[in-house]
Formats: sequence, C-alpha cells, structure tokens
Amino acid sequence: MISKITEVNPIIWENNRVLLIDQTCLPGEHKIVEIKSYEEMALAIKTMIVRGAPSIGISAAYGMYLGAKEISITDRNKFLKQLEEIAVILRKTRPTAVNLFWAIKKMLKVANQTSGSVEEIQIALLETAKNIHAENLQACKNIGDGGVEVLPTTPEKLNILTHCNAGALATSPALGVIRSAWRDGRLAKVYADETRPRLQGAKLTTWECVQDNIPVTLISDNMAAHCMKQGLIHAVVVGADRIAANGDTANKIGTYSLAIVAKAHNIPFFVAAPLSTIDFKISDGSQIPIEERETKEIYQLGETRICPEGVEFYNPAFDVTPAELIAGIMTEYGTVAPRELEQFRIKQLGVL
Amino acid sequence: MISKITEVNPIIWENNRVLLIDQTCLPGEHKIVEIKSYEEMALAIKTMIVRGAPSIGISAAYGMYLGAKEISITDRNKFLKQLEEIAVILRKTRPTAVNLFWAIKKMLKVANQTSGSVEEIQIALLETAKNIHAENLQACKNIGDGGVEVLPTTPEKLNILTHCNAGALATSPALGVIRSAWRDGRLAKVYADETRPRLQGAKLTTWECVQDNIPVTLISDNMAAHCMKQGLIHAVVVGADRIAANGDTANKIGTYSLAIVAKAHNIPFFVAAPLSTIDFKISDGSQIPIEERETKEIYQLGETRICPEGVEFYNPAFDVTPAELIAGIMTEYGTVAPRELEQFRIKQLGVL
Repeated sequence: MISKITEVNPIIWENNRVLLIDQTCLPGEHKIVEIKSYEEMALAIKTMIVRGAPSIGISAAYGMYLGAKEISITDRNKFLKQLEEIAVILRKTRPTAVNLFWAIKKMLKVANQTSGSVEEIQIALLETAKNIHAENLQACKNIGDGGVEVLPTTPEKLNILTHCNAGALATSPALGVIRSAWRDGRLAKVYADETRPRLQGAKLTTWECVQDNIPVTLISDNMAAHCMKQGLIHAVVVGADRIAANGDTANKIGTYSLAIVAKAHNIPFFVAAPLSTIDFKISDGSQIPIEERETKEIYQLGETRICPEGVEFYNPAFDVTPAELIAGIMTEYGTVAPRELEQFRIKQLGVL
Repeated sequence: MISKITEVNPIIWENNRVLLIDQTCLPGEHKIVEIKSYEEMALAIKTMIVRGAPSIGISAAYGMYLGAKEISITDRNKFLKQLEEIAVILRKTRPTAVNLFWAIKKMLKVANQTSGSVEEIQIALLETAKNIHAENLQACKNIGDGGVEVLPTTPEKLNILTHCNAGALATSPALGVIRSAWRDGRLAKVYADETRPRLQGAKLTTWECVQDNIPVTLISDNMAAHCMKQGLIHAVVVGADRIAANGDTANKIGTYSLAIVAKAHNIPFFVAAPLSTIDFKISDGSQIPIEERETKEIYQLGETRICPEGVEFYNPAFDVTPAELIAGIMTEYGTVAPRELEQFRIKQLGVL
C-alpha cells in the first residue's frame, strides 16, 4: 500500500504492477491498491475498486499483460491459448461497458499479430496497454477542449448537471468538458446527481470538483427535474458505458430519466465519450446487456438495512438513453449528432 | 411509551393524549410517542415523527385542542387570543402541506363560532379534531374504493408505481387505492421508489405493503423510467401535499420527474388526495411554498458523510407537478380531471 497519489490519476503503471485508487473508499479515504496479477485485476473491476468505462478498459488491458507475464510457457501457441483463457475471465467481470471488451480484443489481436517469441509478445502487450492508457488520457483532454465549444451560449455563466462520475477517476471526459468550461471562465457551477445506489456522484464527482476548486452542488437524483424547471440548469453532460451505432447510449442508471426531463425543459443533453465506447457492431441500444448488481446495494446503506424483510428488489446498474434525446456525442474527433455516427466513423476513421 | 400498536394507525387519541407511531424509527423499530402538549405536537410535526399531509392536518387539529386545554383562563376573548398564538406556532412547523393550515383554520373557526364558556369551546375543539380524524379515515377508504375503478384495464394484473409514502401512516389514500386493487384481485405488485433523501418509500411504503402481504419491489428513484420502458409499470399513483385550483400538485420531491417520465411512456399518472388537500385559494402551483430542509439529509446517510467538505447542497422537500401531466385526481367524491377541479367543487360542495 502507498498512502497518497498527488493528482487524480486512478491508474498508474509502475514497477511491474498497477496502482489503483480504491474508488470504493473515496471520499473518506485515499487508499491505493497494488495489482500484481490478472486475478487481482478481475476482482478490482468486479468490486468496483476501479470503475467507469474507459478506466475499466485500461485496467483490463494491464490485466491482460499481467496475465501474459504469469504464463511461464515458451510455446507460442500454448501461450496464446492460455491468454485466451485469461481474456475469458477478465471479460466476465462486468457486462455493460464496451471498453472492457474492446481493450481485451485489442490485446488479443496484438498478441496474435506479434511475431517472434513469447517474450516479444509480452513486450508488445505492455506497450499496447500503455498506449491504450495514454490514448485514453489524450482523448479525454481532446474531448474536454472540443466539447466546451458546443455548450450552449447563455448570457450568464453555465450551470452544468452531470450524473454519476464520468471524470478523471473513470478516465472519462464528461468532467473534462466541465473542467475546460471552468478553465475558460464559462462555468458557474456543477450540479451533481448523487447517483443511487452506489452514490458515485456524491462520493466521486464532488470529490473531483473539490480537488479542482470547481463549485459543486450535490442533489439527490430525483431533484434534477425540479432544478431544471427553476432554470438552474443550462446543459447536461454525462459519460457512457456503451454507445450503439445509432447513438443509443447505455450509461449509469438514471441517465435515461435525466435525458427525458432535460428534453421536457429544452435543455441540451450531451454524452462525452471516447470512440472506444462506441460499439459499431450493434445497431441499437436494445442489444446492450444491462448488468444487474446485488440487491444489497438497494436495501443497505452503510450498515443499516433501510426496509423490512419480505421486500423484493430490482437493481439494474445501467439504462439506455435513446439517440433522439441526445443533442450530441462529444468524441476526441469532435461532437457528432447521434444519427450521423456511422457517417462520422467512415469519415474520421476510414472504416467501411 | 407503549411498545406496540397492532394495526397501521399512526395517530390515536386516547386518555387525553395523542399516541403517534414514530415514523422516523420505522421499519427498524415500532416506537410509540406520547404527545401531551401542543409544543410536543409542533416538534413531532417538525421532526417528522408524524408526516404525510393528512396526518399532519389531523395532528395539528389535536395539537390545537391540547393547546386549548393548556390555557387556564376563563375569559373567552383572552382564551381565543392565546389560541391564535398556539395556531401561529403550529403553522410554522411545515410550510407546504395545506392540510396543516386547513385543520388549524377549521379549529379556530369552531373556537370562534362556539358560544358559551371556555370549557364548552374546549369540548367543541376536541369533537372537531376527532371529526377531522374520522373524516380523513373515511375519505381514505372512499378514495381507495373509488380510485381503483379508474385504474387502467390491462390483460394482466397491474403493477403500480408509487413515490414516497402516501399510505395509512400518512392517513393518505395512494396506498389505499393500491390496497383496494389488491383486495379486488387486480394488483400484481407495487413498485416503490425509495424516495431520497429521507427514504420514506423504502422505510414506510414497503413496511405498509409487507404488513398487508402485498408484493412490493423497491427501486431507487432514478430507476422508474427504465422500469417503465421495459413495460413493468401500468400506472402511477401518488399522494399530494397541496393541490392548486388548476390541479397543479405539490408532492414529495421526485414526483414531478416521475410524472414527466410517465407521460413519456404513456403511463397514466394519478394523484390520490382528500379534498382537504386542495387549496382553492391559489390559482396555480407557482404559489405553493416549497419547504427546504436541512442539508444534512443530503450529505449524511446514517452516521456516514457521503461527500467531501467544500460541497454545496440543495434540499427542496417537494416539487410541483403541472396539471397537464396528471390523468386524474382521486378524491372522496370521485376522480376528477385537474382542469375540472373548480367545476367539480361547485357541483360537489356547492361552494361558489
């Protein structure tokens, strides 16, 4: 354990292990967890020590490398087979965020395409994981800088509402857009939904804002519509766990509700996400698997059970916001209307 | 202290004092609080030992009587003046629920209109408080029985979503409608919003359902839209703290959001409330004062602070749902469309 990392940097590669800020301990405790094996990484993702779609992707990439290092076989084919098995385990940690699958696929592809010895493959895998990490950080920066340009122009400074934590802890750019707006003198304050059941808005988003001295007002999720009606909110910016080819967006439970109420108040609703979050293989949001998490998250707050025995629970961790409620998807290549995503991909990435 | 009351009866008048179920202790503890003075009653309302608009009204009526009994003056005018002062204190407890003001006004009117001695006024006040109590219970029963008739007809049994607690604990009829549907074999299950910040849905509504063996699924507030999209909800029934003459309805924070998302899914949204909840003196919801409660309700869960220092908070306890989002207001005289409220009053009550 190391007691302190000085900036909000949830994933650090150092001395052949990954250092993660334990996000289940924030804001009370700034605890660093050392990850030395792919099993430890799988557990860290599953238990949400690390969370947020891009952070999960980066962590899975390092997890693949840690797994690759553990395979003490020199036979290339046997090595690749064992690496596939490690991929299976890492894939099972969380079902919704596509970055997880994207990063694992990329790592496997590099392993298969790298010629030479197992050692050479291992070196290539570490380089790939580091690149995924660096590219995500750069994408966040670009999205932050680009996203701020499409925020609405208002006579007063902006109040921006966000849901869950799509910030530095998630290596996710929604708070990056907010930070850029703050840097440019365009932001008055952030409204943060607390984001039940796991309260990432209350625990993580407010913490990131406080680190950067950005004014932040915490509300419970059900207050957003009331705030909008009173004219307190000018724009909504959220992250994404997976975006379908048509722009339908899976994100933390409550995002869909927020998008509906934003529409009802004519408030623009933006999704900020790197392209690795877009799953062009699926045509719409109905094909995104929605993780259901343990019911204890609903009925237990701290050590206290909030309801009697005999009650049932439902705990979907994500919901899907249909593309028509989204004003724009802020990516590292610019902001795009959901219906233009496919065309945008062809233009930007040359993929046909 | 008395350890147990056998049925869900939050307010009992017995041996010259009021017995209240302490609703801040449910569902963990079934604690009964004895109220012997108007000061104790004012505190019980303020601290939400008793809550829910009609229960607040009934409690305030008994509080007025307890206050009247404490005045040891035989001069009628001096007595009435002191009673006015007690009314001022009781009125200050909570600003939004109109039943509080309605009940206090009714008690003052009876005091002023009763001829004879102070003792005779005191006797009339007790009778009036008891009548308000009995009429509210009867109204709840009538609303339950009448309300079920306007619920949508579906091939399968109904899943009804409710927000906060508008049940027996609140002497409020939203759960009465649900109980009638259950009795008539029309209900499959209740979905209960947990209702942050004070969790009355999780703590009180599920508890009432469990008492009556009604199946209930607890969700966090931000899950309602996702449930609706999946076809899990057939109707929404909520209570009200104050309804304006045009049908705009103040109710627990989150109700407005729920009404918007219900509309987006074509799910009928009903308000169940006795006529004493309708404030015909105000033309629309913009005139309803919205109570802001202490910010601790937002940032502290049990003994744990959920966010860092340096964060601001906003804690409106209610919001206003515009009439156009409400399919019908279920009253003890039948269910009425919001826009027909005024006409309905003239027809039913002969008030011009």
